[in-house]
Amino acid sequence: MDITRTLARFVVDHKARDIPQNARHEAARSFLNWLGCAVGGSRHDTVERALAALAPFSGPPEATVLGRSERLDVMHAALMNGITSHTFDFDDTHLKTVIHPSGPVASAILALAERQPVSGSDFLHAFILGIEVECRIGNSVYPEHYDVGWHITGTTGVFGAAAAVGRLLGLSEQQMTWALGIAATQASGLREMFGTMCKPFHPGNAARNGLLAAFLAQQNFTSSNQGIEAKRGFGNVLSTSFKPEEITRGLGESWEVALNTYKPFACGIVIHPVIDACIQLRNEHELKAEDIEAIEARVHPLVLELTGKKTPQVGLEGKFSVYHSAAVAVIYGAAGEAEYGDDVVRDPRVVALRDRTSASVDKAMHEDQTRVTIRLRNGKTIEKFVEHAIGSLERPMSDADLEAKFRGLVKGILSDSACERLIRLAWDVGQLDDAADVARAAVPA
Amino acid sequence: MDITRTLARFVVDHKARDIPQNARHEAARSFLNWLGCAVGGSRHDTVERALAALAPFSGPPEATVLGRSERLDVMHAALMNGITSHTFDFDDTHLKTVIHPSGPVASAILALAERQPVSGSDFLHAFILGIEVECRIGNSVYPEHYDVGWHITGTTGVFGAAAAVGRLLGLSEQQMTWALGIAATQASGLREMFGTMCKPFHPGNAARNGLLAAFLAQQNFTSSNQGIEAKRGFGNVLSTSFKPEEITRGLGESWEVALNTYKPFACGIVIHPVIDACIQLRNEHELKAEDIEAIEARVHPLVLELTGKKTPQVGLEGKFSVYHSAAVAVIYGAAGEAEYGDDVVRDPRVVALRDRTSASVDKAMHEDQTRVTIRLRNGKTIEKFVEHAIGSLERPMSDADLEAKFRGLVKGILSDSACERLIRLAWDVGQLDDAADVARAAVPA
Repeated sequence: MDITRTLARFVVDHKARDIPQNARHEAARSFLNWLGCAVGGSRHDTVERALAALAPFSGPPEATVLGRSERLDVMHAALMNGITSHTFDFDDTHLKTVIHPSGPVASAILALAERQPVSGSDFLHAFILGIEVECRIGNSVYPEHYDVGWHITGTTGVFGAAAAVGRLLGLSEQQMTWALGIAATQASGLREMFGTMCKPFHPGNAARNGLLAAFLAQQNFTSSNQGIEAKRGFGNVLSTSFKPEEITRGLGESWEVALNTYKPFACGIVIHPVIDACIQLRNEHELKAEDIEAIEARVHPLVLELTGKKTPQVGLEGKFSVYHSAAVAVIYGAAGEAEYGDDVVRDPRVVALRDRTSASVDKAMHEDQTRVTIRLRNGKTIEKFVEHAIGSLERPMSDADLEAKFRGLVKGILSDSACERLIRLAWDVGQLDDAADVARAAVPA
Repeated sequence: MDITRTLARFVVDHKARDIPQNARHEAARSFLNWLGCAVGGSRHDTVERALAALAPFSGPPEATVLGRSERLDVMHAALMNGITSHTFDFDDTHLKTVIHPSGPVASAILALAERQPVSGSDFLHAFILGIEVECRIGNSVYPEHYDVGWHITGTTGVFGAAAAVGRLLGLSEQQMTWALGIAATQASGLREMFGTMCKPFHPGNAARNGLLAAFLAQQNFTSSNQGIEAKRGFGNVLSTSFKPEEITRGLGESWEVALNTYKPFACGIVIHPVIDACIQLRNEHELKAEDIEAIEARVHPLVLELTGKKTPQVGLEGKFSVYHSAAVAVIYGAAGEAEYGDDVVRDPRVVALRDRTSASVDKAMHEDQTRVTIRLRNGKTIEKFVEHAIGSLERPMSDADLEAKFRGLVKGILSDSACERLIRLAWDVGQLDDAADVARAAVPA
């Protein structure tokens, strides 16, 4: 079973015309969402510290740190953009494996596109192929690999980045096989790091190391030809269960990117149904906080277990408060990164509505469900049942939702007109003459 | 059990005066041996290809690629020197864990010493501490970690490099704890890569990533405080058996560097007894090839199983021929990289003596033993029994042996006078005002 070589041949030989329209559109949605997260995360402390550490070692400033004025060499820029895009944990999720697929791949190839000409069509194609490689390798080791403690976005992301970059470098089948092997021998990232700055470091590191793998292979730097499937290769060493057929079965017939999902709200997924219900009620009834006597939510038990914080003091605690989340959903009609700022958590208007919010466990509710009742001061009662929260595979965010999320993330970093231009470029990335236009348009004036 | 923090505190607080003289001298021996391997390996194809791939991305050319004229940024130089020093697989071995300890640590801190002033005393101290961290972490997971397929020099080397660099950066205990965590989440390198260019890539990558970990921690980039010992930390994720007490027990009382060993010959260790015996006989009897009727060796079964190649055609095959190895040992009194060149393997004088050499299995011989009999054309017979081959812990290479090995490796790259100067600098590294003198002296005129 020549898994690594089969995968390499697929990436090298694949024709863009054989990608169905739905996969192509989902890739554009993934890219837009990733780009917004990267620009939005670009001012975080995690990013400032990484930049302070690494900028002194940068090579030629050929690539953009999205959302910032700094330019770095391609590998360092990819590292930084992988970090920024995962800093809010707001990027895309391949639910089958909990991989965040765009970060490692997009960070690597967008930086590369600033070094060598890459058409939008080639860019989107490489992006889709990279995600395919990454997620299929993830499918082959999930869930055991994740359960034992690997951060699967880091460990499989390096393959995705290597494959996508290798495709754009025009590697031969043998070189691509080596690139995947060099990726395999760099696969790393521990779940123990969750809650620290190393979590977003993982997709950045995967992007950087994937570029390195492809550049080395381009110079015929050799690795094993069975880096993935060998007895002492990736699958068997990093997982107690390895299903190689998940990598090759139906290759080119189904597309993992079509299964991608996006978070509408910048908090743990268990509160998403409540937020969704509150926003719907707000919009349908043009609610104002002053009109509301009380908000009552019936929720799955996990909601109170994980997010039952009654009186959050700082933004991060707000993300673990279903009460705060419901209040901002009603007041702002949103629960993005901005609605979890320290100032918002302490805003008297938010605090007052939060204190009029209650939640109770209802075992009839699935994780994806809630029933929210709002009692109004005028005596009326309104109610909303959510069957599947927005952002799930069953009820995906619309293109307009994704744009609104993008605007919320980018606000304050790019001007409104620059933001709208960037949204257009992201949607149209597959038709651009030069994919690097996207990176150049993501720099503040 | 705060393993990571205990180790961090040890590295941060340790006093150089508490290192015993034998450990200090063994460290100088390790450094000399590493330096010779790095300069000697600097012209290999592996190195040319890596340089071609990476030089375009280098930052400020602050550090030396040993044995070459190129200068790269600190992280890329460390990567390259880690590669060159392991290219011949001729560097030091910590036999308890089969870690090659010097590569990741020395490559990282020598490059750093070209960026910031580092006294020789601080350099040697950091080198010893880095090796201690690396080998103790190795002790805690060996052999299960190695058996499952990890190249332990790569996976533990990143900790050694991070610790040594962190010490020279003057990190606080908290920062050092983070540095070890950032190292943990980059630990990688698969045994599947043995026999390819990725094998020497591993210590280089460990050096580069250890530097990155320390630079990030210096800027307060956070990681878990239990990167090594947590349920989903390094020890439990990368090994089926984790013995944390091996990391902290007797810390500061015993020194792993004192257990380091060096290969005298550039081939598989099973042939070393035969080569040793042949060189001893040659020197004691001033043998010439023409005087010899036949060479007969009685050997452990593994020798013929692994190195029974009768008629090697190229240098690499020569390394798997006990016959070729015995012949060059008698003719040249050495079996370094030079004696395994393609030209030497085809040299009629070597071929003729090789054809007069035989080996037979003797089950009474241990792996480390041989009995070699040489019948001379004048009718005499001479014989040598080797109890422990030179290079073993029981019969270590002498300082003079290490110097001779160094000269053999460096020949043709540095002039004789530059070579002698570099040997002196390596021995005296602990007394230098500026450790970077060593790097600057390792550049060809």
